[in-house]
Amino acid sequence: MPREITSFSNETIKRVRALTQKKHRQAEGLFLAEGLRICTEALEAGHVPRMVIAANGERHALTQRLMTETETAGGEALLVPPALLSKITGKDNPQGVVGVYRLLETDLPRLERGAANIWIVCESLKDPGNLGTILRTADAVGAGGVILLDQSCDPFSVEAVRASMGALFTIPIAQANGSAFFEWLRAGPGMLVGTSLRTEHDYQDVEYPAPTFIVMGNEQRGLPPSYEQECDRLVKIPMRGKADSLNVAVSCAVMVYEVLNQRRRG
Amino acid sequence: MPREITSFSNETIKRVRALTQKKHRQAEGLFLAEGLRICTEALEAGHVPRMVIAANGERHALTQRLMTETETAGGEALLVPPALLSKITGKDNPQGVVGVYRLLETDLPRLERGAANIWIVCESLKDPGNLGTILRTADAVGAGGVILLDQSCDPFSVEAVRASMGALFTIPIAQANGSAFFEWLRAGPGMLVGTSLRTEHDYQDVEYPAPTFIVMGNEQRGLPPSYEQECDRLVKIPMRGKADSLNVAVSCAVMVYEVLNQRRRG
Repeated sequence: MPREITSFSNETIKRVRALTQKKHRQAEGLFLAEGLRICTEALEAGHVPRMVIAANGERHALTQRLMTETETAGGEALLVPPALLSKITGKDNPQGVVGVYRLLETDLPRLERGAANIWIVCESLKDPGNLGTILRTADAVGAGGVILLDQSCDPFSVEAVRASMGALFTIPIAQANGSAFFEWLRAGPGMLVGTSLRTEHDYQDVEYPAPTFIVMGNEQRGLPPSYEQECDRLVKIPMRGKADSLNVAVSCAVMVYEVLNQRRRG
Repeated sequence: MPREITSFSNETIKRVRALTQKKHRQAEGLFLAEGLRICTEALEAGHVPRMVIAANGERHALTQRLMTETETAGGEALLVPPALLSKITGKDNPQGVVGVYRLLETDLPRLERGAANIWIVCESLKDPGNLGTILRTADAVGAGGVILLDQSCDPFSVEAVRASMGALFTIPIAQANGSAFFEWLRAGPGMLVGTSLRTEHDYQDVEYPAPTFIVMGNEQRGLPPSYEQECDRLVKIPMRGKADSLNVAVSCAVMVYEVLNQRRRG
């Protein structure tokens, strides 16, 4: 039976709310996902929350299922007033349900590079919305995973989870520094492709053999020159306008759809 | 000579800060753009701010130029403490410069549909970050403009301007309701293409004659069925993953790059 909590000063609620901060996520090994749609996708991908918190007016059958499966798996189900739920994630428009999940990170040696044709690598990505959007795109093109290099933002922040629309439950995520990644990459097959303003190679003129690793640079400065040198190919996406760059999640999508389209043509 | 202001309760500062709200932007016919990069792109596109506000430690030559050109054009240049500047736009990490500009909206009859091959139409887009990103993509592919239908978010909000990276100074933006748009569209040449889950037409199997209008639906519900019926073609972007949709700015980019790539092949 779900437990009812009405006070914001309840110790469980305080601990859950603390998971909006990275240091608490890392200390507890847990993160938050909000919204019935994302929590349902997680469940379908085999991820039962450790705890589920629903607004006490929330009567959706999927919410009931989520709460039952959580309790069956030994987790806890809580009912709280909607105002308390919106305070947990700090969102004005509360989603009705928040799930608490174990962190899902993997590491490079556990990635199976032969399992997919496309991989995405991000170097020091700063914006969690961009990262979540890239995870969502990774799912859409059937990427094998997303590898985060150096000082990238946390894929388990509320903003990144929200933007991923649940893709972080289905896409393996590994974090590494650049040198560890290059060492792992060169120990097996794989073409590393970066986008750059310092090349004339059109992204559509290159053949992308499997597995292709598309590496995206930081939002402000792009890829560092030393990382560009590690790439097997640098390519440019044509631009016809005044500006010289696209949003990083947009560039990433244009690149990985080109790779997918080449595979579709055979 | 720039005027120095140090108090947050100064009437000018209060009026500028009010421009973070849509009702004040509309009442004054003005909006804010933050950051030297965006303000410089605006200047290069011929848009001199009505007022420029710089942090009083800010010594960049482009800031000086921006202030001089603003004063030469009859506008005002202000110097303020950095803490005050960050309060204006509510951003933790102030950008050093904020410009106040006249609203740039145009209307449908003034769009020259023959001036470009690609146009972007958004129906009830809700997220200003998505809208700004779409404007940035529109610039990159040389789109003729972005047409916002029905209850779309405000392209002149601080968040949309920021995500556009200045593209809203170069890309015409028109707002209209659906019926006015369809009437305008059908009064001249143009193929209207929507993305949909309810079609089997692959987006790469369709030829996109000039001018092509790509219409994107709302983030949650996609295009309304009645708008899908207005489309000359509905297409789908292939998805290989668990989820059934992409971020709207990503879908838009995948679509318009396909149109651009067909044009590039001739």
